[in-house]
Amino acid sequence: MPYFDAASSAPLHPVARQALLASLDEGWADPARLYREGRRARLLLDAAREAAAEAVGCRPDELVFTSSGTRAVHDGMYGALAGRRRVGRHLVVSAVEHSSVLHTGGALEADGGEVTQVPVDRTGAVSPAAYAAALRPDTALACLQSANHEVGTVQPVGEVARACREAGVPLLVDAAQSLAWGPVEEGWSLLAASAHKWGGPAGVGLLAVRKGVRFAPRGPADERESGRAPGFENLPAIVAAAASLRAVRAEAAAEAARLRELVDRVRTRVAELVTDVEVVGDPVRRLPHLVTFSCLYVDGETLLHELDREGFSVSSGSSCTSSTLTPSHVLRAMGVLSEGNVRVSLPMGTESSDVERFLSVLPRVVSSVRERLGAPTPSPAPATPSPDLTVDALGRRCPIPVIELAKVITEVPLGGTITILADDEAARLDIPAWCEMRGQEYVGETRRERGSAYVVRRRS
Amino acid sequence: MPYFDAASSAPLHPVARQALLASLDEGWADPARLYREGRRARLLLDAAREAAAEAVGCRPDELVFTSSGTRAVHDGMYGALAGRRRVGRHLVVSAVEHSSVLHTGGALEADGGEVTQVPVDRTGAVSPAAYAAALRPDTALACLQSANHEVGTVQPVGEVARACREAGVPLLVDAAQSLAWGPVEEGWSLLAASAHKWGGPAGVGLLAVRKGVRFAPRGPADERESGRAPGFENLPAIVAAAASLRAVRAEAAAEAARLRELVDRVRTRVAELVTDVEVVGDPVRRLPHLVTFSCLYVDGETLLHELDREGFSVSSGSSCTSSTLTPSHVLRAMGVLSEGNVRVSLPMGTESSDVERFLSVLPRVVSSVRERLGAPTPSPAPATPSPDLTVDALGRRCPIPVIELAKVITEVPLGGTITILADDEAARLDIPAWCEMRGQEYVGETRRERGSAYVVRRRS
Repeated sequence: MPYFDAASSAPLHPVARQALLASLDEGWADPARLYREGRRARLLLDAAREAAAEAVGCRPDELVFTSSGTRAVHDGMYGALAGRRRVGRHLVVSAVEHSSVLHTGGALEADGGEVTQVPVDRTGAVSPAAYAAALRPDTALACLQSANHEVGTVQPVGEVARACREAGVPLLVDAAQSLAWGPVEEGWSLLAASAHKWGGPAGVGLLAVRKGVRFAPRGPADERESGRAPGFENLPAIVAAAASLRAVRAEAAAEAARLRELVDRVRTRVAELVTDVEVVGDPVRRLPHLVTFSCLYVDGETLLHELDREGFSVSSGSSCTSSTLTPSHVLRAMGVLSEGNVRVSLPMGTESSDVERFLSVLPRVVSSVRERLGAPTPSPAPATPSPDLTVDALGRRCPIPVIELAKVITEVPLGGTITILADDEAARLDIPAWCEMRGQEYVGETRRERGSAYVVRRRS
Repeated sequence: MPYFDAASSAPLHPVARQALLASLDEGWADPARLYREGRRARLLLDAAREAAAEAVGCRPDELVFTSSGTRAVHDGMYGALAGRRRVGRHLVVSAVEHSSVLHTGGALEADGGEVTQVPVDRTGAVSPAAYAAALRPDTALACLQSANHEVGTVQPVGEVARACREAGVPLLVDAAQSLAWGPVEEGWSLLAASAHKWGGPAGVGLLAVRKGVRFAPRGPADERESGRAPGFENLPAIVAAAASLRAVRAEAAAEAARLRELVDRVRTRVAELVTDVEVVGDPVRRLPHLVTFSCLYVDGETLLHELDREGFSVSSGSSCTSSTLTPSHVLRAMGVLSEGNVRVSLPMGTESSDVERFLSVLPRVVSSVRERLGAPTPSPAPATPSPDLTVDALGRRCPIPVIELAKVITEVPLGGTITILADDEAARLDIPAWCEMRGQEYVGETRRERGSAYVVRRRS
């Protein structure tokens, strides 16, 4: 039963399991105590910190263990923002950061601060020049992920770090998706990561803060972890996290090459095997194990459900699977299709045969979902096309508005327009994306009392 | 090698270990995902929540898992304070709360709020009437521990809860020390606890918030745990925490009776076997497994070190062992001796023979430390006592000032005074405590440029 959602959570690495078991008996006491059980726990904690710091590329006293990657991001951002409060309350982030970064930005805004989101190109990458231009004299902190969690695109961290250094702004790198594969490019000031993303246990995050970075921990005073991560240390899990990071790093180069080839195969073959599909993200500057594509005329939730029935666990950035009913902010920022979105992220050790089986199953699954939803099939144009048409898709959820649009596009002559009335948030992203894929012209959107009117001109 | 510091962290319960192992393979995926690995994780999480809620005595949807007891306290207090911000920014706590409660109070004060600390009597208990009197129309939250972590005294939670209900103030109960032994008395609004205190793994706390309690989670938005505990769920550990809570509860009644008898033995025998000792805390309304006593003329760090060499792991609230150089705020609030302080907290399953061995070792260890420090031994009064004497103990650390005082008390006649000059913080607590133990009169303290002058009148 292939699990292809390593980017959400990787299966526990055998070394993590082993280290966890071994330290359960030695690592339950309070490492702050001076008696033998405490001293043993302290030794384990110190050794884990050294191992993790080596993998991160920092000094052990620059690194603390938090209770999750989300906490590392929250507390790292708050600490850096508070430490530079005198400089200002402006924050720069990319538009495709993890929600933990964007939500901390949201909290800053609600509290009177200001956030600039640097846009990304169609591959999901920021431009270092655009990033540098967003830095201001009152910028307290800049944040950039090492690689995107939804589409795998690697960000130009080194160049952005140089721009930040020149501007005197500390850069926090969310390395959650990439730390298993290697250290982050030089130049960061703060770094956050999450153990369960590399095959370590849940309950452990990393926060590294370089010496010299102004940092004022948030919240009530606490003596644990240099005052940067309150609460009793999650010790056996910390040991397991550090041991497994070292283990995955030892395998990383060979495994990256192998998975990169498998992902290339998915990228090429999906485009061949499935009609009306958009493979997104940078094809080269990307994480080795992750690929995302979107299928027109399919809703993500049904697609995931059908793939799950076939034994494949994948995730989706489609609106249809999210509790918020809005499409992934990453896909939106990239301006790509969100309909029928599938993210495949291969855990280390994934068999080539499982990927082959996925490729053999996918076209059939997509076809059957399309059939059920009444997706358009090429049909001859009617005898006397009307010059303009209006389609009412109000109250209909993704992907129906796009399906309705595709069904009638040939009913208008070249140059004629179709107006689609829709109130599903996803339409705002998917109708322009469909036009781009189909060579049609997206004219624009007009807000209505209910939903919007999207106008498309037939060009092909 | 007996470990007598369960109140810091209990050894992992066998059921916790078993449950942790069993759920490592099933519980690593994201419980928010809809594929089978996610559904399995969700089932484990739901079952753990039900079991924990049953033990706490609340509805499953009132309980979330946090990453530690400290986080549960921090986030519970912040959430409740923010939820009632319109009412006011006044907080009521007992003077002997855990540092996580007091530090959150400190952060509130730094932010312009106000904190009232309700004093405790010499046993460490608050008076319900005094607590009720501290509640004001602008009180946003009241906090009271279920039992004290340093001396074991059980607080009158039920009565205080009634007073809070009448005043319309939510009561947060820090149940970290008592939850293993049974549910908290009825009437609380919020409850916090920590799994590693009951033999569960580190990395798991509980926060229960009763329906109808106004609560505004602190910090950036996050969808996990009803928005009350951000970050990926620490799942196998959560399963282990819930399973072990259920297991310790099944053993609690029998084990409480057995340990209560052992602790009674320690309380009686320590007072018989060791001279100049003060056993503190309520002898009856107390946790079954915990006893604290203080030995005159001994420094806590040396005592702990010597006991560790004899194979006993205990902790101390003496200033001499703390990084802050101030004696335990609990002992200070109780007005009892902090010198040579030892806390013995027996893990479930502690053998009677280990307690006997501790009692046989303790007198010798205390004597040898006293001898090394030059503690006073009864000596005949000098022929012509001077009416008043001054002892300069400036620059000398606890327990030296008290040792010097005790050495010269018989050198003044009855009614004569001794003035001790001292600048160790502990003297402020220990000199009056010594007077009370010795039947001497503590006259008072005068601040000096360096340290203080403490005046004692000989009465016996």
